[in-house]
Amino acid sequence: MLSLTNDGSSAELTELVETNDLTGIRLWLAEHPPYEIADELERMDSHLAIIPFRLLDKDRELEVFEELDPVHQQEILLGLRDTAFHELLEEMDPDDRARLIGEVPAKVATRALAGLSPSQRKMTAALLGYPEGSVGRYMTPETVILHRDITVGRALEVVRAKGADTETVYILPVVDDGRRLAGTVELSELVVSDDSVLIKDLVDILVPRVSATDPAEDAARLMQQANLIALPVVDSEERLVGMLTFDDALELIEAADSEDIARQSGASPVAGNYVAASIIRLARARSVWLLLLIVAATLTVNVMQAFESTLEEVTALAMFVPMLTGTGGNVGSQSATAVVRALAVGEVRIRDLPGVAWKECRVGFVLGIMLACIALVIGTALVGSDIAVVVGVTVIAICTWAAVIGSTMPLLARRVGVDPAVVSAPLVSTLVDATGLLIYFSIARVILGI
Amino acid sequence: MLSLTNDGSSAELTELVETNDLTGIRLWLAEHPPYEIADELERMDSHLAIIPFRLLDKDRELEVFEELDPVHQQEILLGLRDTAFHELLEEMDPDDRARLIGEVPAKVATRALAGLSPSQRKMTAALLGYPEGSVGRYMTPETVILHRDITVGRALEVVRAKGADTETVYILPVVDDGRRLAGTVELSELVVSDDSVLIKDLVDILVPRVSATDPAEDAARLMQQANLIALPVVDSEERLVGMLTFDDALELIEAADSEDIARQSGASPVAGNYVAASIIRLARARSVWLLLLIVAATLTVNVMQAFESTLEEVTALAMFVPMLTGTGGNVGSQSATAVVRALAVGEVRIRDLPGVAWKECRVGFVLGIMLACIALVIGTALVGSDIAVVVGVTVIAICTWAAVIGSTMPLLARRVGVDPAVVSAPLVSTLVDATGLLIYFSIARVILGI
Repeated sequence: MLSLTNDGSSAELTELVETNDLTGIRLWLAEHPPYEIADELERMDSHLAIIPFRLLDKDRELEVFEELDPVHQQEILLGLRDTAFHELLEEMDPDDRARLIGEVPAKVATRALAGLSPSQRKMTAALLGYPEGSVGRYMTPETVILHRDITVGRALEVVRAKGADTETVYILPVVDDGRRLAGTVELSELVVSDDSVLIKDLVDILVPRVSATDPAEDAARLMQQANLIALPVVDSEERLVGMLTFDDALELIEAADSEDIARQSGASPVAGNYVAASIIRLARARSVWLLLLIVAATLTVNVMQAFESTLEEVTALAMFVPMLTGTGGNVGSQSATAVVRALAVGEVRIRDLPGVAWKECRVGFVLGIMLACIALVIGTALVGSDIAVVVGVTVIAICTWAAVIGSTMPLLARRVGVDPAVVSAPLVSTLVDATGLLIYFSIARVILGI
Repeated sequence: MLSLTNDGSSAELTELVETNDLTGIRLWLAEHPPYEIADELERMDSHLAIIPFRLLDKDRELEVFEELDPVHQQEILLGLRDTAFHELLEEMDPDDRARLIGEVPAKVATRALAGLSPSQRKMTAALLGYPEGSVGRYMTPETVILHRDITVGRALEVVRAKGADTETVYILPVVDDGRRLAGTVELSELVVSDDSVLIKDLVDILVPRVSATDPAEDAARLMQQANLIALPVVDSEERLVGMLTFDDALELIEAADSEDIARQSGASPVAGNYVAASIIRLARARSVWLLLLIVAATLTVNVMQAFESTLEEVTALAMFVPMLTGTGGNVGSQSATAVVRALAVGEVRIRDLPGVAWKECRVGFVLGIMLACIALVIGTALVGSDIAVVVGVTVIAICTWAAVIGSTMPLLARRVGVDPAVVSAPLVSTLVDATGLLIYFSIARVILGI
């Protein structure tokens, strides 16, 4: 299929740009849809990406621009002359524009706002008034609104008159006299209904709604759960202030998942394309946790030092340290990952904490038994049965302990208002390393009688 | 907001069911939208979930059922009497029904197919003919199709006549005489256009399309990238066979992300709700990799044994083993996680392998330098500068090595046709553990001259 096999054609655009083949670039642009063009531009250095971007037709320029992520939008914008800069901003969807302006340096933001028409400037300022990460920053304020007392025929006239300028008209908000949200009606219902039917007889009043100050990610997950193309957004008095559309929901969910995935590995999320990210940006995103964790790992050195005499007496105990810390870390990471994801998609809630801890305790114990059997065999074969028994018993204890730690920490984090995803696999591993060694040497002393 | 704070009301339904308060259950059901009811049912044991389900009105029953995931659909279905069983299946969306029947035991599938009306049975059998995980299994075969030569007025009549029965009418496929896909037209365009305009003058011919045998996840990511509510699906002769709708795309993306996240922690994905999953199912999903990895960890024991004399001479070297293997594992996992995600969302392709390896090599080196500084300080404070230098140099080497291993392995996996997500953090950690120890003791021998 054309659209799923763009691997071949993509090398070309970079080559065409690098050889400055303007005719070739124009032809390539004409043959590709906006999202594929945006995809290619995101993979190029910004000083190169501006070349094909400038060669786009006026109307496609906007389409391609809106498909870019904010990091690349900013880079492209800074490469444009004043007229093009202002024209592009004026024509953007208000929510995309507000998000972009919210992220650029203050100087660029001032220049951007100054060039807007008064009505667009006002709308942008209103959106920027909502907190970062809130629904208000992502919603479309320009929507076609229907009054509950009008007829379907009149409603279709309203859609025809105003629909062309708005991002979505498939889910239409219905309001009462005070602009308070009564519910929504689908465009398809209007099309199939008789012109004389009243909107109030079609309106779905059970439709979910969110506040403009609610977290945008939660709203997106709600849209996913309820299969909504658009979700009405209201203020504290239940008055309609905008609509959150499915494309924003998709973007929010992908970004949230990417963020959670990065966090799970102990890295901060890096905005924008991986290929275009610099060494320094990638290293910085990963360094914070690594630095904290290597400091925390001092604990493992301390534990090993505390048991130095034991180690000197039975050097063979040292041999199994990497295997035991590794296994504990693996089990703990699995539990943490499972619970973080279950929290993210809403399967687990804070008050499930005792149940989750008890469940993971048993899962860890079952896994421990299985792994201990293998450890016993390996241990006996390599160093003899005395130490093998120590290793086996330790595996059971560490697996159970790791599963409990790994599963309860994300829930405790959520409880104190911290993103559960910061309870990363490396964090759990490091904590389990130190405590696991303590367990190991204690068991060794008891069983070996030293 | 009502819809984002359902934490309070949910305890209630379980309680109402447990106390068998039928009036209370009916009231609760009337007050909640289908997706919230489904959410609650998924959190309950199946023998309990069937009670409120049976109390739903006929038309809401279907809505709630369609919001359930296949695991719970199956459980509910098996708890229904024959008439209810067949009625529910007959009314389901064809794609959801096919997916459900594809997952139940053969005996149930036969019973399910036998009860369908001939037309629905034929449609279901056709969908089941596509490979598992392909677009064909997720698409809606019943769509309103427009011929390119008709007018907008006629098109709206077609929508009115057939639209009520189909899942989506917002993106309408347009075909030519041979039922070959010409492109799509949006319902909103029909509404705002004059009745006499011809469809062929409105059709968007650059719209992406996928083949019914393409992987469903790729098609969903494409819809996300191109912001599509629905995507036309064609056969090998470019004839329209169905539409993939945005709700399926959202579901596919969430499932794919959950799967990748589980895989990243070395676990198989567990279908269905975390809370409802049994201990044995969770343990089984996690055990395969843990068992493989503890066997692989035998390598670390071997390396430690090979350097036994070195360890006996300088016991202090053993103290830093958990810190070094931990750090190497962390850096390697971060690289692997970043590359697996970049591959999943299409930012990195196989042919980027050399570039990615070289980039991660430098990122690992930069991180290594930073971490080595800390390790030097910790090492000097705890055991003296000789060993601290060994530890510091090892940190640089291990971080660089771990980043290269962690980043190239997912790309190599994709190259040989394996899901890159199987290159999990635990797998990378275990590999880096053994090789890292080899590096550590080799450096120690050189620097300490033993």
